[in-house]
Amino acid sequence: MAAALNAVQLIEKHRPTLDQALDTIRSRAYWSPYPEHPKAYGAEHGSLSAADGQAAFDALRGRRFELDQPGEDGWTGGETSPYGIKLGIEYPHTDPDVLLPAMREAMPAWRATGPETRAAVCLEILARINARTHEFAHAVMHTSGQAFMMALQAGGPHAQDRGLEAVAYAYVEQARTPDSAHWTKPQGKRDPLQLDKRFTPVPRGISLLIGCNTFPTWNGYPGLFASLATGNPVLVKPHPRAVLPLALTVRIAREVLAETGFDPNLVSLAAERDGEGIAKTLAVRPEIRIIDYTGGTAFGDWLEANARQAQVFTEKAGVNTVIIDSTDDYQGMLANLAFSLSLYSGQMCTTPQNLLIPRDGIATDAGDKSYDEVVSDLATAVDKLLGDDARANALLGAIVNPQVKERLEAAPALGETALASRTIRHPDFPEATVRTPVIVKLDRAKPDAEESYLSECFGPVSFAVAMDSTEDAVALLCRTIREKGAMTVGAYTTDPNAERLIEDACLQECAQLSLNLTGGVYVNQTAAFSDFHGSGGNPAANAALCDGAFVTPRFRTVEVRRPA
Amino acid sequence: MAAALNAVQLIEKHRPTLDQALDTIRSRAYWSPYPEHPKAYGAEHGSLSAADGQAAFDALRGRRFELDQPGEDGWTGGETSPYGIKLGIEYPHTDPDVLLPAMREAMPAWRATGPETRAAVCLEILARINARTHEFAHAVMHTSGQAFMMALQAGGPHAQDRGLEAVAYAYVEQARTPDSAHWTKPQGKRDPLQLDKRFTPVPRGISLLIGCNTFPTWNGYPGLFASLATGNPVLVKPHPRAVLPLALTVRIAREVLAETGFDPNLVSLAAERDGEGIAKTLAVRPEIRIIDYTGGTAFGDWLEANARQAQVFTEKAGVNTVIIDSTDDYQGMLANLAFSLSLYSGQMCTTPQNLLIPRDGIATDAGDKSYDEVVSDLATAVDKLLGDDARANALLGAIVNPQVKERLEAAPALGETALASRTIRHPDFPEATVRTPVIVKLDRAKPDAEESYLSECFGPVSFAVAMDSTEDAVALLCRTIREKGAMTVGAYTTDPNAERLIEDACLQECAQLSLNLTGGVYVNQTAAFSDFHGSGGNPAANAALCDGAFVTPRFRTVEVRRPA
Repeated sequence: MAAALNAVQLIEKHRPTLDQALDTIRSRAYWSPYPEHPKAYGAEHGSLSAADGQAAFDALRGRRFELDQPGEDGWTGGETSPYGIKLGIEYPHTDPDVLLPAMREAMPAWRATGPETRAAVCLEILARINARTHEFAHAVMHTSGQAFMMALQAGGPHAQDRGLEAVAYAYVEQARTPDSAHWTKPQGKRDPLQLDKRFTPVPRGISLLIGCNTFPTWNGYPGLFASLATGNPVLVKPHPRAVLPLALTVRIAREVLAETGFDPNLVSLAAERDGEGIAKTLAVRPEIRIIDYTGGTAFGDWLEANARQAQVFTEKAGVNTVIIDSTDDYQGMLANLAFSLSLYSGQMCTTPQNLLIPRDGIATDAGDKSYDEVVSDLATAVDKLLGDDARANALLGAIVNPQVKERLEAAPALGETALASRTIRHPDFPEATVRTPVIVKLDRAKPDAEESYLSECFGPVSFAVAMDSTEDAVALLCRTIREKGAMTVGAYTTDPNAERLIEDACLQECAQLSLNLTGGVYVNQTAAFSDFHGSGGNPAANAALCDGAFVTPRFRTVEVRRPA
Repeated sequence: MAAALNAVQLIEKHRPTLDQALDTIRSRAYWSPYPEHPKAYGAEHGSLSAADGQAAFDALRGRRFELDQPGEDGWTGGETSPYGIKLGIEYPHTDPDVLLPAMREAMPAWRATGPETRAAVCLEILARINARTHEFAHAVMHTSGQAFMMALQAGGPHAQDRGLEAVAYAYVEQARTPDSAHWTKPQGKRDPLQLDKRFTPVPRGISLLIGCNTFPTWNGYPGLFASLATGNPVLVKPHPRAVLPLALTVRIAREVLAETGFDPNLVSLAAERDGEGIAKTLAVRPEIRIIDYTGGTAFGDWLEANARQAQVFTEKAGVNTVIIDSTDDYQGMLANLAFSLSLYSGQMCTTPQNLLIPRDGIATDAGDKSYDEVVSDLATAVDKLLGDDARANALLGAIVNPQVKERLEAAPALGETALASRTIRHPDFPEATVRTPVIVKLDRAKPDAEESYLSECFGPVSFAVAMDSTEDAVALLCRTIREKGAMTVGAYTTDPNAERLIEDACLQECAQLSLNLTGGVYVNQTAAFSDFHGSGGNPAANAALCDGAFVTPRFRTVEVRRPA
């Protein structure tokens, strides 16, 4: 294949970005090459402006999404935006018996090109995705229900960051062994033994990405780029309600691969017909050697148990806890929690669910506050935050599916409602389901409460649980993490003893802890290159984004040695 | 606990060795801190001399091996040396319901001390083991049946090298994330967001080492030290016929842990009663989160399928191939192969089994050689190598168990015998079973041959298989690796095309290749810090010694972040 872009140029273009990413995963400082401000994009920056992005998105609607993959045998698709509009996009359906062999055929050349070129190709893919951030923003918004700004940032630059982070980890793990080595072993008076050795990272096989509905790009890019950068072809199986963001990703990846002289089938799409359940059949095919999955616990557990031929990376569900022991910034705490509970209507795997508050109340800079006061002040803070409909819409986004709405509506029956959910009208999308969060009071002492606070209630529902003490809260935290898993833990305390107890609990149960967040950083947000997303060490996920364990099992190193 | 050795001193003592190990796993050059010459040990070097080692071993025999572990409920043991002597050593049997909780209690302090101190403690353990290399030599010899010099080197310094290599990998993977970071995210004209972050590597849980009969230390140390260095307690379950080398290891580890102020239960022994099958019950206990296993395929597959709560690292069985296409050093090739087939009576997972030779013969520097000539010249080379009984005993060691002897005796029925096995008398151990290897001719064209060359025949049996061509040999190589796995592949060729075919096959099927070895390096030997043992990418093993994938899943990183 003639390459329009050669590897040397590509490496030259992207090596500084890769090097900065490599530095940053070591320093864990703040950094991102992908701007998060919408105005940073436009023709003058070589990227789509807001208007161009809107136009590009509009041009996709009501059409077939061409990919030109081997084995195409029809068209499928039926995404409806949580904002109420039909996307009307059809994607090619593909016969895996044709597509998978074609993907395997693409492997030797991709393996042979080596880690640095693979990283550069991945960074070119990410750069082209970045240039179309405004287009992705609409695609993510109208599949996930995220509000536009969040869809732009979390679905755009933040997802791209996570992809780049995975490329950096993949590169450093492959490059830690040199391409070649000379080995000389002294033999006393005899000549030394001498060998020349060559080391090649080799891929495991085809990688299957099973995408999710709420964060198709943010949760999808780490696995996609970790696998691709380590030499594996990637078959992308999007959530049927969130195909477009990943289909766009696949198309861009295929373009870059073709332009750089590689086989575009290295990144392919597996769109499914209604009710086809293709993930389950693909996951156990012998060609599939790696699986990345984000979604519900039941299917994640099924994959871990049944896709035995593959290395399976899962992010499933958990129950996230915030312990409220004491604070020296009561208003800051309330505002921070109110935001965390409201953002994207609590439809994040990182949103707090259980707020554990001593029934005897807490000490604060505004005086002692009873359990009831804390809960009602938090309810007031949420109300205040969402008092303006425009701001409420910008924060809440839309309810992603009917199940979330059902849980929200069922929540008041679980206990005393501290904050009732309100319906918000969206000025542009009257059919969107926009709801403010509900807070329900539960009492640890009442046996029937346990069923509620020890189940995941995904969506804008949180429980303010009255606890006997902070020690009691830590005990429940441990049990919750051990039995249900947790993507995040939050805590507020001014007491060094309580702080130590909570930290020890998180180290013991392996959960990521945010302490005393009162400003503009929220427990449900993590920053690539610095924060780990999940730990991989509790039932919520068997992998973390991103660490060495997320990339090392994706490849092996083959050595060829010969006399020097 | 009062520590006789403090962490600072220990780090000061061992940091240079750790640094050199870290450098060497990057350069893959030759290096070892542990001398392999027996005369390098003695009182003047702070270690046991040959005589001291013999005396120390003799003093262990016929006694109880005290360990002082919690939950001891009796004594067990019945090792008989393959050289015919009874060891008469009894080991404490322990109740896992007492021992496992005690091991878990040891975790928080071991986690809290951090990667550098853990590495230093591991290096101190290795240094003390190294000082007792001569004692270990006898322990390994009289459990594995290895000849003394091999037991000393492979069971001593080479095993210690592999342990240190694992510590180095574990350290670098844990230390890649800093202990702490300051994170500042600009916010335009507003104050930046600022967080302080702490990162702690946390262990998965108790690690179970299931040892093997033939290389108890060499195959045991990587998993033991990788787990211990990443913060996990290690429960050592030796093969019932090779307890002593690992029991000694456990005792030394416990001494060092106690002297450095840690809980000795971090390394504990699980000796089993006759027929108890304790590995199977321990492997599925919820406390066991990591398993390292070396042994037969059936139990390895069982572990991978059933020990779902654990991360399972296996080295199982494979069928190793050498392709003989052509050579420019015929005598060197024959001598090298003869040694490889003879060393430790072929009882290495890395010993070649199938020698694939074109039926039309090969080109060599000594003229063209027919298939029959190659085979008979190889038989002669083996005969010559083992012609002297003293040298034969020093190379062959003893047959480790009756099953190997049965396979050896059954081999002549599989085809035409090109080299018959001879019985060698051992001057010091008349009851030792010492046998020279057998070579059997098979023909790829005969359908009944396949059952032989596609089964592992562990022990001193190899098959000289007549092939249609080198291309045919490469095809069989691929099939053999894919279906049966391979720890090693060897090849001899002077033809660049054949070489490329063979290299591509090994990259494709993920197997380690040694080309044209004619001197003092053998296909069945790998050097720590430079060579990978196994690839982890074919059915012979799901792990390689040692790479990033061998250590990264043994720990997770927990982050605690708070406003700066």
